[in-house]
Amino acid sequence: MNFIGKVVVLLKEGVFDPQGVTIKNALHNLSFSQVSRVRTGKYFEVEFEADSESEAENQLKSMCQELLSNPVIEEYSFQVETE
Amino acid sequence: MNFIGKVVVLLKEGVFDPQGVTIKNALHNLSFSQVSRVRTGKYFEVEFEADSESEAENQLKSMCQELLSNPVIEEYSFQVETE
Repeated sequence: MNFIGKVVVLLKEGVFDPQGVTIKNALHNLSFSQVSRVRTGKYFEVEFEADSESEAENQLKSMCQELLSNPVIEEYSFQVETE
Repeated sequence: MNFIGKVVVLLKEGVFDPQGVTIKNALHNLSFSQVSRVRTGKYFEVEFEADSESEAENQLKSMCQELLSNPVIEEYSFQVETE
């Protein structure tokens, strides 16, 4: 079966996010003064084969831990969809 | 009312994504040979105030078009949640 894993990787709460601060300030300069905070992160769509949805979730979890995220400073979340 | 806008920005289909190719190759080297494709993108969480959900959606759409995405090569999608 073919799956698409949709992965979001964010800096953990408490880790300084200078890109988010810069984007918030840029939005203020564009008159979006109602913005109080911006968090930035990475997004991945991974297309892969697996025998079942639970196996797909296990495989994607391993990919997140081994390559897609840095567990020291980042947290990840994902959902798996059938293609 | 306080809202959180969750924005995903991806390269349009057809735009070369060298980072995605690199990650796919790295996953193959880590024995995830079942991966056929990786798309990379950006993710933003924007916390802001608006009077209603429809106004929040309109504001976030403007932010995406004016700053968060490059409409020449990128496409965006978002959802708005009440905080």
